[in-house]
Amino acid sequence: MRILIKNISHLFTPDLRAGYGKIIDKKNVHLLIHDGKIEKIFEFHDSTPEVDQVINASGKAVLPGFIDAHTHPVFWKTREDEFVMRIQGKSYEEIAAAGGGIRNSVRKFREAEKEAIKKVTRRRIRSFLEYGVTTIEAKSGYGLSTVDEIKSLEIINELNEEQPLEMIPTFLGAHEIPDEYRNDRQAYVELVCSEMIPLVAERKLARYCDVFCEKGVFTADESRRILTTAQKYGLKARIHADELAPFGGAELAAEIGAVTADHLVQTSEAGIKAMAEKGVIPVLLPGTTFFLGKDKYAPARKMIDAGCEVAISTDFNPGSSTTQNIQLIWTIAALKLKMLPEELLWASTYIPAKSLSSEDRIGAIEPGKQADLVILDIPNLNYLPYHYGMNHTFMTIKKGVVVFTRSG
Amino acid sequence: MRILIKNISHLFTPDLRAGYGKIIDKKNVHLLIHDGKIEKIFEFHDSTPEVDQVINASGKAVLPGFIDAHTHPVFWKTREDEFVMRIQGKSYEEIAAAGGGIRNSVRKFREAEKEAIKKVTRRRIRSFLEYGVTTIEAKSGYGLSTVDEIKSLEIINELNEEQPLEMIPTFLGAHEIPDEYRNDRQAYVELVCSEMIPLVAERKLARYCDVFCEKGVFTADESRRILTTAQKYGLKARIHADELAPFGGAELAAEIGAVTADHLVQTSEAGIKAMAEKGVIPVLLPGTTFFLGKDKYAPARKMIDAGCEVAISTDFNPGSSTTQNIQLIWTIAALKLKMLPEELLWASTYIPAKSLSSEDRIGAIEPGKQADLVILDIPNLNYLPYHYGMNHTFMTIKKGVVVFTRSG
Repeated sequence: MRILIKNISHLFTPDLRAGYGKIIDKKNVHLLIHDGKIEKIFEFHDSTPEVDQVINASGKAVLPGFIDAHTHPVFWKTREDEFVMRIQGKSYEEIAAAGGGIRNSVRKFREAEKEAIKKVTRRRIRSFLEYGVTTIEAKSGYGLSTVDEIKSLEIINELNEEQPLEMIPTFLGAHEIPDEYRNDRQAYVELVCSEMIPLVAERKLARYCDVFCEKGVFTADESRRILTTAQKYGLKARIHADELAPFGGAELAAEIGAVTADHLVQTSEAGIKAMAEKGVIPVLLPGTTFFLGKDKYAPARKMIDAGCEVAISTDFNPGSSTTQNIQLIWTIAALKLKMLPEELLWASTYIPAKSLSSEDRIGAIEPGKQADLVILDIPNLNYLPYHYGMNHTFMTIKKGVVVFTRSG
Repeated sequence: MRILIKNISHLFTPDLRAGYGKIIDKKNVHLLIHDGKIEKIFEFHDSTPEVDQVINASGKAVLPGFIDAHTHPVFWKTREDEFVMRIQGKSYEEIAAAGGGIRNSVRKFREAEKEAIKKVTRRRIRSFLEYGVTTIEAKSGYGLSTVDEIKSLEIINELNEEQPLEMIPTFLGAHEIPDEYRNDRQAYVELVCSEMIPLVAERKLARYCDVFCEKGVFTADESRRILTTAQKYGLKARIHADELAPFGGAELAAEIGAVTADHLVQTSEAGIKAMAEKGVIPVLLPGTTFFLGKDKYAPARKMIDAGCEVAISTDFNPGSSTTQNIQLIWTIAALKLKMLPEELLWASTYIPAKSLSSEDRIGAIEPGKQADLVILDIPNLNYLPYHYGMNHTFMTIKKGVVVFTRSG
């Protein structure tokens, strides 16, 4: 099967030879896809080959499909009531301490049937495709019992087989201390390490393990134990670090060789230096800071200046960031993290691919890579974060197949 | 022509008898439209009449079409390059002082043919319908010469006739001091008062007159002169007030009996009290504060507590707020103005209708009013600002005609 995407005004992709923040902008080209992979980029004046299908990009721009390396899509009920409590003056931390937040989602998740959760999750992840996202990292973490964490990871793995959005699963049994272990947190850490991780690894239900290392959740010592145990079982480490308070999460990520450290709003200079030295990828989630109504954002420029390759993500979840719109995250990252459009392209394609050990296959447009693409109705790259709050997607393509087309 | 909208799960509309912030939530109803007007609301178990057309709301929610009472849609070029300059550290005010900002738009606007500007404006305003907006107030203000301001208002009036989005025109000749009058601002004020306003009034090209009363733009005295002149010619007053610095704009609005005062980020307590006493409607534009990367928002709660009826708007324009997504404005207003969903419903339907002297006709769902409606895919009203950055519109209806339907 050969497909030609014709009439591309701009083809934007990270310039992998030039390095972070440098991009290739090819004007007036056609793109040839062969059996789901990129074969060749043509100039307009080149002769084009015989193909089975032609897609007309209609003078729009083609980018690698966006990759979102931090999401929590498997939950049962939304939490708009807690959102209104926040407007009325309660903080996210107060709501969580009173049994709301993640624990609220956990209680509801445990009560629901797997098939019912799968159905709402299927609908939810469809929205990622509409915004041009072709791959997400998807975490468990609203089960917090062996049976419910397995249920969550099974949903991710099963949905991965039946619909086009690619999901790479992460085990997040250490998302919170569940209600029944509030008075014996060590026993919960023990359960995660001795029972959940071995089972998840044996059944190959996840490729990564994550921990919410944060004041009031898991300490650095507990996080170290959980993540190094996971590493022994072949799961690579990601870590929720320094979101609400400086807690040594970035330093821990560097110490144990985690692939990513995520959030990092409150990270120390030492933490930034350690991440840069060890090649830990900061996954920044400015939508979460926005949606929590806060004004202090992660120090992205310091990280980039220190040599970190920064990724951005929606953090899609039912409490602290409810959006699937990665394009709005570009705007917030531009305004508040002071990241330039060229850096945002890297941060939402090649770097998240790298954080998912998939950069040989996805995250850039070059011959041999998977034809995961988004066609955007934008005249230049600066326009994407500039025209904010909109959906600029004209078409989303996964492995050469059109999976979303905008109407109207 | 009779149309039945069936299977409405919730019909949300301002409760006009109960007052600001109180809403009606009718569950499980059908809605009958007759010749573009709302005729009746039925319970599910009532017998339904013979109709010419049935629209299936599919269990979704119906609201009055959103009304956006502050937009600048008639411009030629977008300004994404200035957006990138802001990310790199320049402030909006610095860019404006160096000849960018509004004056940049003015130079481009003057060079372009009317038909070309009309074409891009037509495309742009289409997006409002996609987000459920059925009426906008539309300002001139990128011409700043008699001929170019007339060109702008003609575009608004002509587009009003040929497409479904209703636009109510406002003359904003006093948007900035144009380049050629920088050394003789009084001459420009004189031109606005002696030539532009009389001509706009005579040709009935606008219903309102607005002034950008702000430090570095028009003083309170200049604004008073322009707006009271406009009032003599039958144009009601609106005013850009206290956005960047406290400048007495709210007080001036109250003094001269302006219909609205807009922005109001820096408004004084005395200004709030004066607006409340005189019934001036504050039109708050939190998307602009967000898009300028600032953290200080208009004191909406103080205004509501003082008895003001607050409206919210996108401020759609090419420099300081580029979005047509009023639903995202709900989220920013909830998070940063601490406005509740019920207040946001009033603030984006009935109150902006009132600010446009059109509340007898639009802004609520009740028999006799125009059938301007939006059908949203939301389970409750709290969900709308909660699931942020998305488009929840399932269908938009103007005068009983479906003007947008979501695909997929």
